[in-house]
This record gives sequence, structure tokens and C-alpha cells, in this order.
Amino acid sequence: MNANATLPGAIATDEPQPTVRQRARIGLLGASGYSGQEFARLALRHPGLELSVLFSRERAGRPASESLPGIDPRVHAMPAFVHPDELSSRLEANEFDTLIACLPHGEWAKLSAATPAVSAAARVVDLSSDSRDGAHGYVYGLPEAFRGDIAAATRIANPGCYPTATMLALLPALEAGWLGGPLMVSALSGVSGAGRAPALRTSFVELDGGAALYRAGTEHAHVAEMERGLSRIAGRKVEVGFAPQLAPMARGILLTATVPLARAVPPADARSIYLERYRDEPFVRVLPPEDWPETRAVRTSNRCDVAVTTMHGGRVLLATAALDNLVKGAAGQAIQNLNLMLGWPEDWGLPKHGNPW
Amino acid sequence: MNANATLPGAIATDEPQPTVRQRARIGLLGASGYSGQEFARLALRHPGLELSVLFSRERAGRPASESLPGIDPRVHAMPAFVHPDELSSRLEANEFDTLIACLPHGEWAKLSAATPAVSAAARVVDLSSDSRDGAHGYVYGLPEAFRGDIAAATRIANPGCYPTATMLALLPALEAGWLGGPLMVSALSGVSGAGRAPALRTSFVELDGGAALYRAGTEHAHVAEMERGLSRIAGRKVEVGFAPQLAPMARGILLTATVPLARAVPPADARSIYLERYRDEPFVRVLPPEDWPETRAVRTSNRCDVAVTTMHGGRVLLATAALDNLVKGAAGQAIQNLNLMLGWPEDWGLPKHGNPW
Amino acid sequence: MNANATLPGAIATDEPQPTVRQRARIGLLGASGYSGQEFARLALRHPGLELSVLFSRERAGRPASESLPGIDPRVHAMPAFVHPDELSSRLEANEFDTLIACLPHGEWAKLSAATPAVSAAARVVDLSSDSRDGAHGYVYGLPEAFRGDIAAATRIANPGCYPTATMLALLPALEAGWLGGPLMVSALSGVSGAGRAPALRTSFVELDGGAALYRAGTEHAHVAEMERGLSRIAGRKVEVGFAPQLAPMARGILLTATVPLARAVPPADARSIYLERYRDEPFVRVLPPEDWPETRAVRTSNRCDVAVTTMHGGRVLLATAALDNLVKGAAGQAIQNLNLMLGWPEDWGLPKHGNPW
Amino acid sequence: MNANATLPGAIATDEPQPTVRQRARIGLLGASGYSGQEFARLALRHPGLELSVLFSRERAGRPASESLPGIDPRVHAMPAFVHPDELSSRLEANEFDTLIACLPHGEWAKLSAATPAVSAAARVVDLSSDSRDGAHGYVYGLPEAFRGDIAAATRIANPGCYPTATMLALLPALEAGWLGGPLMVSALSGVSGAGRAPALRTSFVELDGGAALYRAGTEHAHVAEMERGLSRIAGRKVEVGFAPQLAPMARGILLTATVPLARAVPPADARSIYLERYRDEPFVRVLPPEDWPETRAVRTSNRCDVAVTTMHGGRVLLATAALDNLVKGAAGQAIQNLNLMLGWPEDWGLPKHGNPW
Repeated sequence: MNANATLPGAIATDEPQPTVRQRARIGLLGASGYSGQEFARLALRHPGLELSVLFSRERAGRPASESLPGIDPRVHAMPAFVHPDELSSRLEANEFDTLIACLPHGEWAKLSAATPAVSAAARVVDLSSDSRDGAHGYVYGLPEAFRGDIAAATRIANPGCYPTATMLALLPALEAGWLGGPLMVSALSGVSGAGRAPALRTSFVELDGGAALYRAGTEHAHVAEMERGLSRIAGRKVEVGFAPQLAPMARGILLTATVPLARAVPPADARSIYLERYRDEPFVRVLPPEDWPETRAVRTSNRCDVAVTTMHGGRVLLATAALDNLVKGAAGQAIQNLNLMLGWPEDWGLPKHGNPW
Repeated sequence: MNANATLPGAIATDEPQPTVRQRARIGLLGASGYSGQEFARLALRHPGLELSVLFSRERAGRPASESLPGIDPRVHAMPAFVHPDELSSRLEANEFDTLIACLPHGEWAKLSAATPAVSAAARVVDLSSDSRDGAHGYVYGLPEAFRGDIAAATRIANPGCYPTATMLALLPALEAGWLGGPLMVSALSGVSGAGRAPALRTSFVELDGGAALYRAGTEHAHVAEMERGLSRIAGRKVEVGFAPQLAPMARGILLTATVPLARAVPPADARSIYLERYRDEPFVRVLPPEDWPETRAVRTSNRCDVAVTTMHGGRVLLATAALDNLVKGAAGQAIQNLNLMLGWPEDWGLPKHGNPW
Repeated sequence: MNANATLPGAIATDEPQPTVRQRARIGLLGASGYSGQEFARLALRHPGLELSVLFSRERAGRPASESLPGIDPRVHAMPAFVHPDELSSRLEANEFDTLIACLPHGEWAKLSAATPAVSAAARVVDLSSDSRDGAHGYVYGLPEAFRGDIAAATRIANPGCYPTATMLALLPALEAGWLGGPLMVSALSGVSGAGRAPALRTSFVELDGGAALYRAGTEHAHVAEMERGLSRIAGRKVEVGFAPQLAPMARGILLTATVPLARAVPPADARSIYLERYRDEPFVRVLPPEDWPETRAVRTSNRCDVAVTTMHGGRVLLATAALDNLVKGAAGQAIQNLNLMLGWPEDWGLPKHGNPW
Repeated sequence: MNANATLPGAIATDEPQPTVRQRARIGLLGASGYSGQEFARLALRHPGLELSVLFSRERAGRPASESLPGIDPRVHAMPAFVHPDELSSRLEANEFDTLIACLPHGEWAKLSAATPAVSAAARVVDLSSDSRDGAHGYVYGLPEAFRGDIAAATRIANPGCYPTATMLALLPALEAGWLGGPLMVSALSGVSGAGRAPALRTSFVELDGGAALYRAGTEHAHVAEMERGLSRIAGRKVEVGFAPQLAPMARGILLTATVPLARAVPPADARSIYLERYRDEPFVRVLPPEDWPETRAVRTSNRCDVAVTTMHGGRVLLATAALDNLVKGAAGQAIQNLNLMLGWPEDWGLPKHGNPW
């Protein structure tokens, strides 16, 4: 029996435990949105993270627990929300050292440009799409592809949920140089991916019991991000078509990518390459033969499940993936990036098991 | 103005009304399953159809209203279910003339082989996959493609729900000779498509809040049906890959087909061809530009909504469709086929509008 | 074969068909909300009703089909929405004679006070709570209790969905004089009952997979309406406690009322009184013994299902009911009231059967 | 910085940590059902519990991870399921010391009668209803009411989910002697409460989008358990009426109890008594005024949220509660009981915060 067995509280006591010299103190922008809430929930269970300042424009002055449903305020007496106007003064007072931006697209770019004090933050992770093209020195934070860059960075652009699923579904095939033409991604997403601002299109009655395609083709904002990320992985230009769909569920992305191959690849070979490539990845699992991804298996976890085969004499690759858009597609991946930046074990404090219902 | 305009009760009084000399008297096999129930509900509103005998193996002797939830038995005093062992005797007694088989795959083939009296039925529509390869003289019942054959037939194999959506999404493109290689179909289905027999995989808790891929690739039973139907439409061999998905909703199919094209087709040309081809089809609607199909819009209707574009310089067609798997994908299409066989207006008694919630 | 068999289009061809000399021409206020949409859908299948003018403040000038998802505009070429500022001029031009107000609570009271031309409307049915206390000569439109008054009226206040279910669950018991003290109503509602204006509390993610109590006690606006209606039925003051709950479904109310009785009533006697009282009501069904209401059985129908028993030696009545809040709880009941006002068969054009999924 | 900061992995590092001399080694019967799965998931995060043997009749020999969706088998290499025929031999081999029975009602009574070796188990917690009447020396395991008895016991009958919610909603009022007559419980439950055996009534299509009452009155098996528990708490005979309802969600119980009071109690007094009584209970939270329970706030947690008021001049108490039927209503409460039996902190390893979506 190891020492840990007498020190309960651990989720997984058999894992080696890192030594933390200093917790990262988090300033969280957009704490009442879905990504912000999920980050807060995950941070509360992460021993190396401390939620120091929670910012919210509309709810400034209100107890943060009001916007974090499920939290028992007797256990975690959350501080009051702080107005983002105080971002500079709180940073200068050294109330936090790590900034997590869970703002709507465009807002962090504006806010950081107007707030010189941001340069004092030891680390920034931006969950919006503002810096995913590498603007302002942000490093694109897909750990499975760009681990080394992330570990050396202080500014991270966290990938989008659809692009994360797409890149993890295709990474081994593109690294192997198999791509033979434009690829097609068909994916369905849970409704939390559309954000928390009330809108008719995300109302319960409009969505329950049905599914809808939207902005299919090559125009969706995620297509450019996918093409950029996949091209970097493949070392050549990759063209993407995209058919996003909204399904009547709160969380989850289920994705199917179809790829014409430059040469015939037998199904077993495709699977072997994937297994080999992902063997040591803590958050990507290649499913057994005949199994296909489902969103419940990864629900509330930071894991992405992947399955592949080839068809039509090996000329077409079918690659599929499932992940939780709020965790591996947003807040969980942000913490995975933080762990790397801080020199901590990459999987520290992150859920590996899904809670299916 | 005909007499009907002053004789209310009509759903759509402005439509020309056919004269019915004789109602078709229906014998319904599998009346308690989802397709059987839907057929019964639609038949109750169709003035030309009379539900004469409802067969059910497990519920023989019980009031049929017990398995038709929603029916007020004070209004429709449904007869008791009859055991299928009485199929011959009821046919010989001329209690019905039109047989609708809503049985699990394989059962109608067995039952009809063992029941010579079936030859006495004036018309048979088989909703299972048993005769979709043309066995025993069954005509494949996709009205939009094979209207003339259906009108002349007495035995119809009703197409599957996935194949119906696939063929309607691709019909104009294939007729135009655009196909340039194997095509890919990614589709999600509501749970009623999996039938009514209790099973863990269709239990509420196992499905609510998540989505799952299953049997992806080229092995699914529907792939052969799709390839057969599409090849006949295209006049050449068509290869299909298929990624079916189960979404947490009771009804509906939402489908995306990706097709490499033999020559570049501009998006507007693709749309024009579809609009032209479907202009007079009562049950296929091409959506306005920028609109994409959603299952709610066709819910409980016999309509299929279609939208198309091309990508990557016109080299790849993206064709999408939504329909209700129980109506246009099963019972509604069976009635559309009956209308054709009986020389009635093809759209008679069939709902054209969806009831979205 | 009866004559009707040659007059197809009828939902229930065996019912006697009324002779309509003149259709009612409808002006519909609030046509894009859930009650307004449902009224439009029901009116399209009612041979005596014509949708003449559809008013919408925000969507004036846009095609009405845009806000009526599911309608195929090729079949029903809906007119454009008209701004409510034109209410007077359209009335004066005699473009419609019957006004249906599906506005948020408070708005019809304001609009009608500011629009003297409203007095020219032959009939008004107000679906809001504005006139349910009998203000401005409005008659309370619960047909099962106040049929005679309704038939003689030109102004109807359509009851709320919770009060309709409550009154139908309790009507026979109160008429029989059984009430012995304050009664308690516990009810759950589908989300469409909360209206269509986007709000965080009716967003999909906030509601899927959970249920919530809200404003329980005696303060809910519906409590006063319940007490007023029940007191009138009982002929004495009735006190009500209320526990409303929001369930993750689009439609339906499921209600349980607990009533202390003035004298002991055996369960069988309670059931007999209900059966007798509702025998000839077209839209209230007393379920068989051991059956209890469920919302699916009445989904999209104008029916209310009721079941009762007594407990604790007959001293406490348990009365239960289910209805569709958008139909019997709103738009369907409005048409039932119109049928009465116009001297038409009360059930004309209204669905009696539920469509459970 | 406290010592815990260097010992990461803890969910809540500020809580005092117990010293465990020896883990409890669990034999889990019925591991593939919903309660069994939930127990397994909770045990994996509890540092004092070790899943030693997982029994399953139908799945004996198969890897346990197959029936524990979401678990990544690379992280937890679960053992194979063992057939319950090996219960005696495994007990005699001392492979486990604590038996958790998550079997359908009736099965544990039979199995334990036929298995004398069970007497060797140091502890047994039975989650079925078999021993809730105190048979065979089982102690009724509602910690908030019977903490002392539980700590001294080796055999626990874990309360049902509906009775747990009912007793926690009413405990302070009954202890205060307020009860004045038969009380009424109206409650809705998520579908997992009906077990995992496939059945038509728990199929997705039969439940999605609707809600249903079932077995209302005084006959439901839970009524006897409620009356027994409440009578013991009140110190007098308590009569209960019950209206259970199935809502379209996987987890959660939402409950409303109506209680005639022996004397008038002002709303504020009722709330004060509840606050006082539950102040130190780790798993019962009295909500702030105007807040009412919702199932999402306690989802996947071991917490029960409670809110109360009085009505009609203080003569009627309205008490409401929400809990997760699989956690506080089953597996979580079993662990709470185990913590007490083992002399550990009662809340050790148990989630206090809900994960709302």
C-alpha cells in the first residue's frame, strides 16, 4: 500500500502525484457562460488551480454561485463577480497571475488591446477564435499536435470544438501523408456549443425532438481554422467542406470525416497507424474494432474517442470522433494547456472517464 | 365551386377532390409497431382507406385502441386485433382487399411464402426490406423515380427510410450524369427507426442527451439498397459509403451526401437543376438559398426537404435532405404508392405540412 | 357504403357535417408566438375558418410562412405579416370579422383600449389573461362549464392552460358539492407554456435533462384565475395552493389535484360521477380504471384526459388530468369557443386524437 | 500554503482528511444496472473503497468495462464480471469484506437466504426494498434521521429514492409535531428509477416529449415505506397518498408534499425550523427564500435541496425537494452509510456539487 492510500481525497490514487510549489491563481473572464462555468467547475477539482477573480459584466457584484448552478455555497463560498473594468487594477494588485478568457468571439481581442496591464499576466489562455491564426504571438493549443510549442508559451489560443474533433480524427492520417483531395466533415453538436446568450434558435421548444443543418459548405468560420490546423499537420494545403448540425442534446460533438486517399490503405493498416500514434496520448482513445464513437462515453470528460476504417478498396478513409465540446472542446483542453505551460503532468486534475447520464 | 366547399370537414377544401367509387379495405400486418401505428393514424384521416382488419401476433384479441395511443375509442371504436394465423381465412372471406405488411425484416417473406391465399389480395405493400431487390415481382416504390411502374403494379416494396432520403437528395444530380466517384452518406436518425421491440440500445436512459455512430462503412444493410436504387437512377454503378447515427429524438432523418463530380458544376447551376426537377413533385421541396433542412419542418408530414450546393470549385456536390422516417420514410410513402396504384391523386389524404413541435 | 365515402378529405367522415353559409374571416394578432402558430395550423385545417390577416409587430412585411415552420409555401401561399398599427384600417376595410388575440399578457388590454375600431369586430377571442376576470364584458370561455354563456357572447376570454386542466379535473366533484377545504394542485408543464420570447430560463441547455419547481404557493397569477373559476363552478369560495413545474418537453400539462372532501366518497362513486358528467363531452375523456393520464395521449389534440380516485377512507379526492397546453389549453379551445359562438358543431375541425410522438 | 497543496488530486483540498488504516474491499452485486454502475463510478473516486469483485449473472466472464460506459479501460483495467454462483467461494477466499447488493427487488432476499457464507461479510448494504421493513436485522439507512443506529450496524437497508426525498422534505416538520392529517406526495422521477431491464414503457420513443402518471393513490410499494419511515420520525401514525410521475429525463426526483397542519405555522417559522434542523447536514441544503428545487442543481451529487412554505393562513405546509435518484436516492446514500459504519467522515469521497448539464 503506497503512501497515498492513507491520504484520501484523490480521484485516482495510483497515479504519480506532482509536487506543486505554487498554485496558479486564475482570473476568469466570462465566468457565467457555458465554457466559463465548465472551467470553474473543473478548476474547483484541480489542486493546482485557484479561482481568484471571477469577472462578469452583467453580474458584477452578485455572488458567483448564482451563475454556477449546482455549487453548494456552504461548501464553496464563491466570491462576488467583479466587473471587467477592474481587470487592470486587479492584475496590478497581483490578485491573479493566469488569465482565462471565455468571452464571445471578438471581445477578448478588443479588451486586451485596450488593457496594457494584460502584459503583466504570466499566462493567458483565450478560448475564443480571436487569436487562432497566431495573431499577437498566441500559440495554437492542440496538445496532441503542438505539445512542445505549448510548453514554451505564455499565450495560448485554445482550439474550437469542431476543429479539435476534426484534427484528432485526422491527425495520424495526415501525418502519414495519405491525403488525396478535399475532405468532408459532417458533424453534429450539442446546443451548449452555441453559447449561453438567449436566442430563439437555441430555445428548448425550437430544438427538442429535431435536428437541423446550418451554414453547410465552406463558409463556416470553423472551416478556415480547420484548414489552417490540418494544413500545418499535413505539411501541405488541405481543403475542407463542412456540414455542421445541431442535435437536441446539451453537450457533445459527433464527427465523421471522409477523406480521398492518395494511395490504397487497407482498413487494418489504418487502424494500426491510429493505435500506434495515440498509444500514449492520455486523452485520445482509439476504440476497439466494430465500436464507433458516441458522445455519452466521453460526456463531462476530457477524452476524445476515435475510430477509423477505409472503404472502396482502401481509396477512401472514414475517420470518426466524439468529444465533449465544453471539456476537450473548450475548458478541459484549456487546463491541459495550462498543465503543459506550468510544467505539470499534462493530465493532472482532468477527468478521463465519461459520465454517460 | 363544387359542393364540397360548403361541406366542411375537408383539410384543404381548395384542392380538387377525387371521386372514389370504392374504398380500399386494408388488412394491416404489424399494426402495433411504429410503422404500423403510423399507417393506422394516416389511414384514419384518408377518406379512401378503411382499416378493415388489424393483425397482431402478441395482442390478438385485445382492443386495437390499446396499441394506438392517442386514439379516443369513443370516436373510433377500433376492432380487436386478429391473430395472423387468420390471414388466409380473412382474405378468403374477402374482409379486405389491400394488404399492408409492417413486419420486421424477414417475416413477410416467410409468411407470404406459407400463405398461398395472399395471391388473392388485390394489392400488397411490403414495408420491410424483404422484396426491395425485386424478388417475387415486387416493384420498388419510390414514386419520384419510378411513378409509372408503381401505377401499373399490384405488389410494392416500400423503400427504407435512409435510402428514400438518400435517393431524393441525389436524384437530380444522378439523372444529370454528374457522378464522378464513390459517394458518402452521413445521416442521423430518430429512434423510432430502430423499431418498437424493447432493447437496451433503444432505452430512454441509454439515448437521452447523446448521439452515437453505428455500423459505419459499407456493410450496413441499407448500403446495398442505396447502391441498387442509385445505380438504377444513374444508369451506371454507384458506390456508397454510409455513416448512420442515432440522435436523441423520436422521429426524423437528417442526411448529408458528398459526391465527387465528373465535371465542375457551379452552386447556382446545381440548385437550378434541383428546382426544375422537383418543381411539380408534391412531396419534395427544394429550400431557398441559405436554408438547410431540419427534421422539425417535415415532422409528421410526407414531405422531404432538400438543399444543395457545390464546393471546391464545383468539384464536390453537397446534397442534403430531411424527412420523417415514419411518414415519407415508411407509412406515408406506402399510402402515396397506394394512391398511385389505385389511380387516385398521388397526394390524396397525405399531410404536406410538418408539425414542428 | 355511405354518402360520405364519395366526399373525401374529411377526417371523420361519419360525423354529421354542418352547412356553412359564410366562413369566419380571422384577423390573428401575435401570429408568430406559439399559441398564434398553433391557431394558424388548426385554422388551416378548419373548413369554416379563413386566415385573412396575420399581424406581427417585429415581422411586419415578411412572409408569414417564415414564422410558421412546417408549412410548405407552395401549398399555402401565406400572406405577408401586417403591422398591428394597421389593425383599425384593416378592420374598417372589413378584411376580417373575427379577431383572435394571442398577445403577451397586458398587451391586448392596452391595444384594444387604444383602438376604438375593435368594437366593429363581430367576435373577439382573447387568449391572454387580460379579461379573464370578466372585465369589458368578456365571457370566460370554458365550454364544459359555461357553454350557454359562450354561445351568446361576442367577446371571449380564453382560459389559461393550468386553470383549464384544473377545472376539468375538478368540475364534477365541485358540482357535486364534495369540497371540504383548501385544495392543492401540483402540475408540470411543457416549455411552450412559457412563451416564445427568448430567455435564459427557456433555453435548451438550461432545461434538457431536468425539471424545476417555480413560484409555488398561492402567489402565481394562475391561482386567482383557478379560484375564481372553481368558486363559480362550486357555488362557494374555493381556496387553492399551486406547485407549477417545468418539465423538459415542448408541450403538455400533467396535473394532480388533492381535495379534502366534506364527506367520505368511495373510489367507485367518484369515478361514476365523473363518467356520467363527461359522457357527452367531445373533448373530455374519463380513463378506464387503473389508467392514469399521460401527455402523449393528448398531444396535438383538443382532448383532456381525466382520472380520479379517493383515498384514506374516501376522505381525500385525487383528481388528475392531461392536456396539450397549446391546443385544449389555448388555440384549440379558442376554436371550440368560436364554433359555439357561430352556432357550428362544437367539435368541428378540431383534432380529437393525440399524436403521441 | 497548506500541506494539501503539495498533495494534489483532492477534489476539495481544504477539507480535513481522514486517516484510513484499511480500505473497504467491495463485492458488488448487480454491477451492470443503473444503481450498480453509479456505485462503481462513485467508488472509483472514493479513496477508501476498492472494487474487488463485480458480480453479474448475464455478463459473467466479460470485461466489466463493457458495462461501465465512459470508463477508459487504459486507466482503470476493470476485472471481468464474476457469476453470482461464486458469491460463497469469493467470500470464503476473503476477496472482499463489504457486500453491496444492487439487485432487483426480491432477489437479494432469495440469494442471501440461500448463501450462508453471507454472514461472513463484515458489512452488507442492500439497495433493494427487501429489508426496509427491518427484516433480518437490517437497519434503515437514512443518515439524517437514524445516524446513530447506522454507525453501529453491519447490515443496512438503503432507502428508496422516492421515500428518501419524501422524508427529507418532511423531517423537520414531523419532528416538530406539526402533522394534522393525511399528507399527499406528488413527485416526478427520471427514467433511470425504473431500472435497466429493457421494457416498452422505458423505451425512448415511448417517453420522449411527454410525461405520465402511474399507479397513483395509496397502493404503490413506496407508500408503505414512506408511511413506516415518516411514522417513525413523527412518533405517530402517518398516512400518505402518492402520485408518481415519469418525466422525460434520465435522472432526478422532484417532489412536492402537501401537509395539513395541526396548528397554524407562519411561512417564516417553517423556513427557520428547516434551516436550523439542516444547518449541519452535509447533504441537505435549504434553499434561499423564493428559490425552489430543481433536479439539475443536484444532478450527479449526493445532495438533496429542500424548500418550504405554508399556505392558507399557515394551515397547510408545502414542502418540496429535489435529489438525484441514482446518488442520494441510491448509490451515494449507500456510500454515506458505509462511511458511517466504518467510522469515516460521513461525507468522504462523495460529490456535494451538482453537474447541471
